Amino acid sequence: MAKLYVVGIGPGGRDYMTLKAVETIKDCQVIVGYTPYIEYLEDLVEGKEIYSTGMRGEIERCKLAIQKVKEGKNTAIVSTGDAGLYGMAGPILELKEDIDVEIIPGVTAAFSAASELGSPIMHDFATISLSDLLTPWDIIEKRIEKAAEGDFVIVIYNPRSKGRKEHLKKAVDIMLKYKQKDTPVGIVRNSGRINRKIWLTTLGEIPYEEVDMLSILIIGNTNTYIKDGQMITPRGYDIK
Amino acid sequence: MAKLYVVGIGPGGRDYMTLKAVETIKDCQVIVGYTPYIEYLEDLVEGKEIYSTGMRGEIERCKLAIQKVKEGKNTAIVSTGDAGLYGMAGPILELKEDIDVEIIPGVTAAFSAASELGSPIMHDFATISLSDLLTPWDIIEKRIEKAAEGDFVIVIYNPRSKGRKEHLKKAVDIMLKYKQKDTPVGIVRNSGRINRKIWLTTLGEIPYEEVDMLSILIIGNTNTYIKDGQMITPRGYDIK
Repeated sequence: MAKLYVVGIGPGGRDYMTLKAVETIKDCQVIVGYTPYIEYLEDLVEGKEIYSTGMRGEIERCKLAIQKVKEGKNTAIVSTGDAGLYGMAGPILELKEDIDVEIIPGVTAAFSAASELGSPIMHDFATISLSDLLTPWDIIEKRIEKAAEGDFVIVIYNPRSKGRKEHLKKAVDIMLKYKQKDTPVGIVRNSGRINRKIWLTTLGEIPYEEVDMLSILIIGNTNTYIKDGQMITPRGYDIK
Repeated sequence: MAKLYVVGIGPGGRDYMTLKAVETIKDCQVIVGYTPYIEYLEDLVEGKEIYSTGMRGEIERCKLAIQKVKEGKNTAIVSTGDAGLYGMAGPILELKEDIDVEIIPGVTAAFSAASELGSPIMHDFATISLSDLLTPWDIIEKRIEKAAEGDFVIVIYNPRSKGRKEHLKKAVDIMLKYKQKDTPVGIVRNSGRINRKIWLTTLGEIPYEEVDMLSILIIGNTNTYIKDGQMITPRGYDIK
C-alpha cells in the first residue's frame, strides 16, 4: 500500500541529509514541496512527479500529497530542517484520514547554525518563531519573556520579514530586561548552504538591517562567551 | 594538517546519521567516544584506532582526541544526537588550543522521539536536562517553571537516573502549576534504536518507574492533542 513520507531534508545541502531521507526520496514516485526546497534536492528528484508551490501554499501541498497517496503513489512531502518543528509533520497528521504516514526527522537550522558558530547551544535552550501569521503576537512576546527569564539559550526562527520589520527589535527589547547588553549573539544567514553568512555580535548591537527570513539568531545564556571567533556556551564541566 | 571532527551521530541507527557524519567517520584514522556510542557505529569504525571510555569520562575523552590531532591524526569524537546539545562540541572548543575543529550537526533525540510519537513539537519548544551533575538544581527548577509558564512544548533529557529518582516527579509538580493534568505526554525509550519503546500518557499519569536515562519525555502545550494514537501539536493553520 502506498505511504506518505514527511521528510526533513536538513538545512539544504546534501551533506546534512540523513541516509534515510536520501533513500526515502529516491524510493518515492511523487515529491511535494515548497519550490526552493525541491531545488535543493537537485538530481535526487530527477524523473519524478514533482509538485512544487510557493509560500503560504502549505495546506494545499499537504492535501495534494495526501491525494497522491490515495492514488496509490508513494509520496514524499519535504520540509527543510526537521519536518516536526515549524514544518509539515503537524498539518499532515491533522489532515490525514486513513493513510499510512511516516515522519523522517532531520537536522534543524538551530543545530546547523550552531555548528557554524561554535557551540552556542550546548545547554537548555528554547526556539521561538517570530512569525505571527499563525500565532498571536502576545503569545510570542510572553514566550520570549519567559525564555529570557529562565536564562535559556534562545534560538529565533523567522526573525524578520518585509511585513514584520519591527518584531525582532521588540523581541530583543524584551530579552534585554533579563539578559545583559553584551550577551553574545550569533546570526547565520543561509545556514548549511553555499552562500552562508555569519555574524558574531551582542544583544545590544544586533545589525537589524542584515537580518531576514533566511537568517537564524542564537542568543547566549549568562555563561556564553566568545573565544577565537567562536561562540561557546559551557556545559558546566570543570575544564582543567 | 590533521583536524578534529566533533560528530553528532543521531539517535543510534545508521538511518539517521547524516551523509557528512558517515563520510567523516570513514575518513578519520582515530575514533573517540563513550563505549556504547562506538558500538552503534559497527562496521564504520572497523580497522580504526578506537578509544572508548565509560560514563563521566567526557573531559578525558576530549583531551585524548585533542592529543591525537596533535600527533597528526584526523580524529572524530562522537556524541549521540547532536554534538552541540548536551554533547562534546562545547568541552572540545573550551579545551582546544591551536588545532582545527569542525562540528558536524546531527539529529537530536527530541526530533527523533517526536517523529516516533507523531508531531508533538511543531511549535516553540524548550529542552531541559534534569541532570544536576553539572547544573545546580535550582536553575533547572527555574527553567522548568519558566518554560511551563510560557506554554512551551517541553522536552526533558536525562529524566531519571538511579541516583536522581525524584527529579522527574519534582519537575512534573512544577509543570502542573501551569499545565493541565490531561496535557499529553509522550515518552520514548531508546528512540531511533531497535529496542525502542513508546508510551502516550498525560502529565497527571506519568509511569515514573518506566522512565530511565535512555528515555526522553515530550510534554505538550495547551493545544496538543492525541489523534489515532499519535501526539499532535498544531502549528496553527486553519485546517479545513
